[in-house]
Amino acid sequence: MNFASDNVWGACPQVMDALQRCNADAERSYGGDRWTEHAETLISEVFEREVEAYLVTTGSAANALSLSAITPPYGAVLCHPASHIMVDECGAPELLTGGAKLVPVEGEGGKILPGGVAETVAALDHPPHSVKASSVSLTQSTEIGTLYQPGEIAALSELAHGHGLKVHMDGARLANAVAALGLAPAEITWKVGVDVLSFGFTKNGALAAEAVVFFDPALAEDFIYRRKRAGHLWSKGRFLAAQAVGLLENDVWLANARHANAMAARLADGLKAVPGVRLSSPVEANELFPIIPDALHRRLQAAGAVYHKWPGEDAGPGEVMIRLVTSFATAQADVDAFVSLAREGASSGAA
Amino acid sequence: MNFASDNVWGACPQVMDALQRCNADAERSYGGDRWTEHAETLISEVFEREVEAYLVTTGSAANALSLSAITPPYGAVLCHPASHIMVDECGAPELLTGGAKLVPVEGEGGKILPGGVAETVAALDHPPHSVKASSVSLTQSTEIGTLYQPGEIAALSELAHGHGLKVHMDGARLANAVAALGLAPAEITWKVGVDVLSFGFTKNGALAAEAVVFFDPALAEDFIYRRKRAGHLWSKGRFLAAQAVGLLENDVWLANARHANAMAARLADGLKAVPGVRLSSPVEANELFPIIPDALHRRLQAAGAVYHKWPGEDAGPGEVMIRLVTSFATAQADVDAFVSLAREGASSGAA
Amino acid sequence: MNFASDNVWGACPQVMDALQRCNADAERSYGGDRWTEHAETLISEVFEREVEAYLVTTGSAANALSLSAITPPYGAVLCHPASHIMVDECGAPELLTGGAKLVPVEGEGGKILPGGVAETVAALDHPPHSVKASSVSLTQSTEIGTLYQPGEIAALSELAHGHGLKVHMDGARLANAVAALGLAPAEITWKVGVDVLSFGFTKNGALAAEAVVFFDPALAEDFIYRRKRAGHLWSKGRFLAAQAVGLLENDVWLANARHANAMAARLADGLKAVPGVRLSSPVEANELFPIIPDALHRRLQAAGAVYHKWPGEDAGPGEVMIRLVTSFATAQADVDAFVSLAREGASSGAA
Amino acid sequence: MNFASDNVWGACPQVMDALQRCNADAERSYGGDRWTEHAETLISEVFEREVEAYLVTTGSAANALSLSAITPPYGAVLCHPASHIMVDECGAPELLTGGAKLVPVEGEGGKILPGGVAETVAALDHPPHSVKASSVSLTQSTEIGTLYQPGEIAALSELAHGHGLKVHMDGARLANAVAALGLAPAEITWKVGVDVLSFGFTKNGALAAEAVVFFDPALAEDFIYRRKRAGHLWSKGRFLAAQAVGLLENDVWLANARHANAMAARLADGLKAVPGVRLSSPVEANELFPIIPDALHRRLQAAGAVYHKWPGEDAGPGEVMIRLVTSFATAQADVDAFVSLAREGASSGAA
Repeated sequence: MNFASDNVWGACPQVMDALQRCNADAERSYGGDRWTEHAETLISEVFEREVEAYLVTTGSAANALSLSAITPPYGAVLCHPASHIMVDECGAPELLTGGAKLVPVEGEGGKILPGGVAETVAALDHPPHSVKASSVSLTQSTEIGTLYQPGEIAALSELAHGHGLKVHMDGARLANAVAALGLAPAEITWKVGVDVLSFGFTKNGALAAEAVVFFDPALAEDFIYRRKRAGHLWSKGRFLAAQAVGLLENDVWLANARHANAMAARLADGLKAVPGVRLSSPVEANELFPIIPDALHRRLQAAGAVYHKWPGEDAGPGEVMIRLVTSFATAQADVDAFVSLAREGASSGAA
Repeated sequence: MNFASDNVWGACPQVMDALQRCNADAERSYGGDRWTEHAETLISEVFEREVEAYLVTTGSAANALSLSAITPPYGAVLCHPASHIMVDECGAPELLTGGAKLVPVEGEGGKILPGGVAETVAALDHPPHSVKASSVSLTQSTEIGTLYQPGEIAALSELAHGHGLKVHMDGARLANAVAALGLAPAEITWKVGVDVLSFGFTKNGALAAEAVVFFDPALAEDFIYRRKRAGHLWSKGRFLAAQAVGLLENDVWLANARHANAMAARLADGLKAVPGVRLSSPVEANELFPIIPDALHRRLQAAGAVYHKWPGEDAGPGEVMIRLVTSFATAQADVDAFVSLAREGASSGAA
Repeated sequence: MNFASDNVWGACPQVMDALQRCNADAERSYGGDRWTEHAETLISEVFEREVEAYLVTTGSAANALSLSAITPPYGAVLCHPASHIMVDECGAPELLTGGAKLVPVEGEGGKILPGGVAETVAALDHPPHSVKASSVSLTQSTEIGTLYQPGEIAALSELAHGHGLKVHMDGARLANAVAALGLAPAEITWKVGVDVLSFGFTKNGALAAEAVVFFDPALAEDFIYRRKRAGHLWSKGRFLAAQAVGLLENDVWLANARHANAMAARLADGLKAVPGVRLSSPVEANELFPIIPDALHRRLQAAGAVYHKWPGEDAGPGEVMIRLVTSFATAQADVDAFVSLAREGASSGAA
Repeated sequence: MNFASDNVWGACPQVMDALQRCNADAERSYGGDRWTEHAETLISEVFEREVEAYLVTTGSAANALSLSAITPPYGAVLCHPASHIMVDECGAPELLTGGAKLVPVEGEGGKILPGGVAETVAALDHPPHSVKASSVSLTQSTEIGTLYQPGEIAALSELAHGHGLKVHMDGARLANAVAALGLAPAEITWKVGVDVLSFGFTKNGALAAEAVVFFDPALAEDFIYRRKRAGHLWSKGRFLAAQAVGLLENDVWLANARHANAMAARLADGLKAVPGVRLSSPVEANELFPIIPDALHRRLQAAGAVYHKWPGEDAGPGEVMIRLVTSFATAQADVDAFVSLAREGASSGAA
């Protein structure tokens, strides 16, 4: 019953298998190998167009390097105050952009809104005293497990582009969004104005792999230098590429995401029926943020359930907000066991 | 017959096996897992003392992050003009130190010498116009496949410490050095004054793993922040750790290095006997730099031998310097085939 | 009638005179001159103790360099959301610290409060995902012309130091604060826990001069490098020092500040009596932020009064917030003329 | 008899006068004032074309900011190994470019040569392992007081532009070069391919002022941000501009430079006639590097002559190389006194 994060689980079998397969022979190093070429082709296929894709190791690297390509050192990245780049990457964007500023944009339901972006752009229009508004970053699915609809992204992009800003999408959980929305990846990325994407594989079932995907090749012009100087060019590039291949071939990535989403929905359904438990935001992907009674929380932990308490202002007295994350590896039995525990806890008065 | 680099080969079986083994269950993320703990213990055992070890993905990351811990942004790293940090990492040390300067120190046989360090320190003694001499970095085994003897390292360290500089060792091929010298790792690192080490696993048989090893824990104080903000903290840390475990358990790393060294020695022995071929530097680890006739070079390449031409001033007219690198995966049959080809080429007049 | 800023005025006579006096002869360059030595002595005298003082050109340089000495690149500076370092220096702190993050702390009356600092420190206590809370910066007098009382600074410093944070004071208008509070400079700086101070001379009557003042010499250890690499070491250091000397000798700086404060008070007194005009914050130093009717605003501008409209949420419909700043050079006649204009405007129905 | 540097002297009378004149009234701050506008116009006139000129405080700032506009963080600046940017600015170019690397280019007579640039560009052609060759910086007059002829600059620029590199000129002593060559400033800058120039006023008679001059306005696009975030935008911009105005009006800058050059020539003429004294490089501007007997050196210093010993390999046993710099303020009497002293010292056997 581990719902602490999608990254507490290992890699899916297809990724492990690809690693084995790619290990057969000598290959050119530093990304000149056949597996890297194949991965790049597969990524272009996913997006139904030619893209410039660059594999890196971590989501923080993908995000910060993406931002460095569209934000000058004297620039500003507009983003959600609770976004991963803002609060969870220890200043990686600041480092890799050379000192750009992340400026919070108010939003709703985990999402930033065009109005908030417009306000922030206006507030920063005071050159050279203010940093230069240069890019907008949005997260899909969001940090609270909600989803941007294509129209919402299009509205943000249009506004951003109108002010000369580029649009980045943190897609650490893009797979979950694609699976949940039932749309082609193109429909929620370049077709609605996204310029550069962090395409996440790690949470989806890889060991440690992400792709920086440029829909505008001009933005990628010197990206090989940026990746290398951050120490993110693997000498044995095949091993990074094989992870992407293992997930993208046969749409394993979508199957993995669908399973994770289904487990989250099942958890949500189960918990909704438990007296004293409520969900602080709609469950649209693979994360849920229930607010539960303190007593139930203690009982669940005592029973061995693993998850994180989560900061937030929605919990009332005697309550606690928790985060539950499901993954490709989440067992239905664990979901059901957790729900049962919660139900028992509630009926025994723990709620 | 691929001698292009030790990184054209994949991972050794023990590493692949460790990856499989570590993939069984849920583990705490971000390095809080049991495999990371085990890897750290094994690294301490290798060095026969408590160390602070931090796993990262690439050699460039290990080097640049190491240097960032011992070199302020206004500092200078003294290093060999042909060192990897100087010419092959696209400014990673400059990025991760926040702008420090790499200052070349003249040397001999691929090694820097105390006299050169002393001269450079003196030349930089002009504050605040000069950057501040802060660290020395040496590479073991060197970029031309030679070895520092313990006494040589001790002399450099003593001089460096005497001037307040810290000592970094780029050990991308430390395994080859340890195997070749037949000494305990401690004898060529902390016992002779090395403060921080890039301990390489990738070239030795991992997919992509290196450790930054601090012998002085005080230097590591805030290293977790530095690693994270460079995007080098894996969320599924087990997969980085398992690579180290696969190599360090049962001294696989040393067996791998011994094989690579033996193959290099066999190549050297074979080539020395070929008329018109000479070695530009002693073959002490797993690299050799033969100077061969142009005609032989063309013949070898036509026959499918893979290696790099190498810049340098030792080749005469009608000659070319090449680099041959062996690895844990180099087949003795390939070595012998290469030598045969060379011998035939020479006798058929290609030399 | 120019109240746009204290920096629309030139330099005071004593500064110009010192420039002339220092221009007589050859002097050692790069701060080795007698004027620099004298300025440093005078600064120590101002603070009634030995300090380490470093002259620089601008307030942005003073602030960003100060912060760079007490905030690592992976650190956080806690500050007021409207502070100059946050919104008016185009990312200078981010550049000179090597990428640190400025984190806003909620406050009241232009001042940050211990409670806000404590909350922010707690929110950042998530290493290595969060940047490391490293310093607190407060502005005296504040951006809205209010003053920290010694006890308020002491409370902030105690809290900050208790969490291992250093305390910086942006004293671009320290002179106005000292003059207004009637306290010795020591009483509102090092005696209440300030570790490093940006001591402003420019707004007070210099051409372009500020001092970074370290009360803890250990923090200044390598500051000469930081100043030099930011391009802030003057070769003809005498001219920077002479400005400080012109202001500090005979307490010209306090006389200048007293005049500016008196003019602000006179403006405030006059405006308070004008119907339809109110002050959005207490006038404690040399800035005031009146909220006035739109019609009056138009009339004042038409009459040639120069000042800035100011963003803020206190103005109601049909009103506008403006900022008026006085300086050593503000003529009482201009103050009186402005007040008369306002009074006439109001009585003629412009209000 | 102070020949230590051109910056041991103060400011020339016309600069002091301009400071007084500009101090009369209120002016818009942050460079929006009439003096800044006037200075910009004068600079365009000097170069006989529209330029984008930005005033800053120091030569290090001018150089490092110039380079930041033409060199990405992953780029290389090719420059003379003894250039000011390489050895005397404490890493300012590294800081302000965000980590670019300065790569030495061998040359002759203090000048870099097209052959050396071509070689270095070729050596760096190994992306993404090498940093990207991005700019060339040359110094006019050079660090050893020699001059680039227009044809030499044109050859360097042509080669640089052919490889996609931009050309920067460090003109800390441009005035001396212009005066010595008797050419229009345009002839040795934009007409021969210089893209951006550090135009020095400080050594020429200002307090602390330089201009970054862009001949290609596209390169200046975001320069206002770069200057501001480095803390180099003066709030009272008039005082920076007035210095430029004082020098550029009535060609004071050229008169100042001619005097300095004449004094250097007179020194050289006098010293050449002294037995045992020789010049290590031709005296073409306002610096000379005589090699003199040790005994004479001691005698000169004992007599109160002020200058620096200079590192270099040309001095034989019993000899020392010294640097003598003249300025607008150098008195002919001092020159003659120095020569007399040297002559007496030589004849009395000190040589």
